[in-house]
Amino acid sequence: MAQDMTLLWGSGSPPCWRVQIALEEKNLQGYNQKLLSFEKMEHKSQEVLDINARGQLPSFKHGDVIVNESYAACFYLESQFKSEGNKLIPDSPAEQALTYQRMFEGLTFYEKLNAVIYYDWFVPEGERHDSALKRNREALATELKLWEGYLQKLGPGSHLAGPFFSLADVTVFPTVATLFRFGLSAEHYPNLGEYYALLKERPSIKASWPPHWSENPKGQDTLKDI
Amino acid sequence: MAQDMTLLWGSGSPPCWRVQIALEEKNLQGYNQKLLSFEKMEHKSQEVLDINARGQLPSFKHGDVIVNESYAACFYLESQFKSEGNKLIPDSPAEQALTYQRMFEGLTFYEKLNAVIYYDWFVPEGERHDSALKRNREALATELKLWEGYLQKLGPGSHLAGPFFSLADVTVFPTVATLFRFGLSAEHYPNLGEYYALLKERPSIKASWPPHWSENPKGQDTLKDI
Repeated sequence: MAQDMTLLWGSGSPPCWRVQIALEEKNLQGYNQKLLSFEKMEHKSQEVLDINARGQLPSFKHGDVIVNESYAACFYLESQFKSEGNKLIPDSPAEQALTYQRMFEGLTFYEKLNAVIYYDWFVPEGERHDSALKRNREALATELKLWEGYLQKLGPGSHLAGPFFSLADVTVFPTVATLFRFGLSAEHYPNLGEYYALLKERPSIKASWPPHWSENPKGQDTLKDI
Repeated sequence: MAQDMTLLWGSGSPPCWRVQIALEEKNLQGYNQKLLSFEKMEHKSQEVLDINARGQLPSFKHGDVIVNESYAACFYLESQFKSEGNKLIPDSPAEQALTYQRMFEGLTFYEKLNAVIYYDWFVPEGERHDSALKRNREALATELKLWEGYLQKLGPGSHLAGPFFSLADVTVFPTVATLFRFGLSAEHYPNLGEYYALLKERPSIKASWPPHWSENPKGQDTLKDI
């Protein structure tokens, strides 16, 4: 069933990782895949542009159906393979609402992370300001406190929308893992630290762990004091 | 059924408008609502903070269920009221994939619009650069050409994901309407112009048209040359 799927992806990209986790959770192993290099600008290669006019990864194809946006691919896979693997959107109104709510807050979380760790990449040299980076770091700290509080309220061993694993975890865990890869302190954020430790042992996540993180387990310390 | 729903919203906010359109499409008229003023900072009032820690609009409650992120609320309403009003997510894999794909590209579209029309609002005075605003305008123009092409390919009278109205229109139409409110030229972008003209006559959209736009039909000309 997964033989007619193709994923073009880059290592360590949270959007790519979301789709990989979703594929694992839905038991869709065996799909065609190709690891491309952002450094070599392979996301702008003809192979990508043929299915993704934006020249971005992930680029995902299922038969003739193209669905490149990572959240779109996650919703598509859950909907089209509802009875395969793990159910990722709960039915109960309260659990479902919280799953959706955290998924979409997750986009803000991801944006605030990027605005700190990739500040120099996003902002050309002549336009950088210490005041802006400082504000971005403060905004990320505020965001982190929100998520720390969400997990605190749900109690030990929780996932992002409750006791169950859901699309909220599929989409937001890669952001959390990136935070720790960039030096976030589990002492400062104990609930996020516990969540990270729990989820990184999950089979779907282990199976899709960014290969360049495995090859070089030492990350950066950009976020150690945040 | 809608009597146990409450929407706190602001006029002209695309995220609020998305939820209003979804409620209309699902025949959930009669919900409680309160129009708040961004200018008076009412989105930071206790009434909002009680259900939305981020102090943002929309803030939406259904019984005890809180779901504030606009995309989350749209998914929630479609899922919980699947058989009410209009079906907003098609079942066919290709149509569903395109609906999801355009919905999530819509977030990029909205972001690129905001980076131009609210540049001075987002960037403090000492950090503004003509080069950045120029780049943002070019990025918006590139984005506009993509959407113009999508509509061109689907043919006259199309909606964003095909001949049918879907969650892609619910979530992206408010961005398109804001573009024209800020002076976008239908001569430069004829397919977007036609789409805008078609959709603004739709009952759900007429019923939720931003009241301050109706009171003062003249918008701005920020985007007239883009």
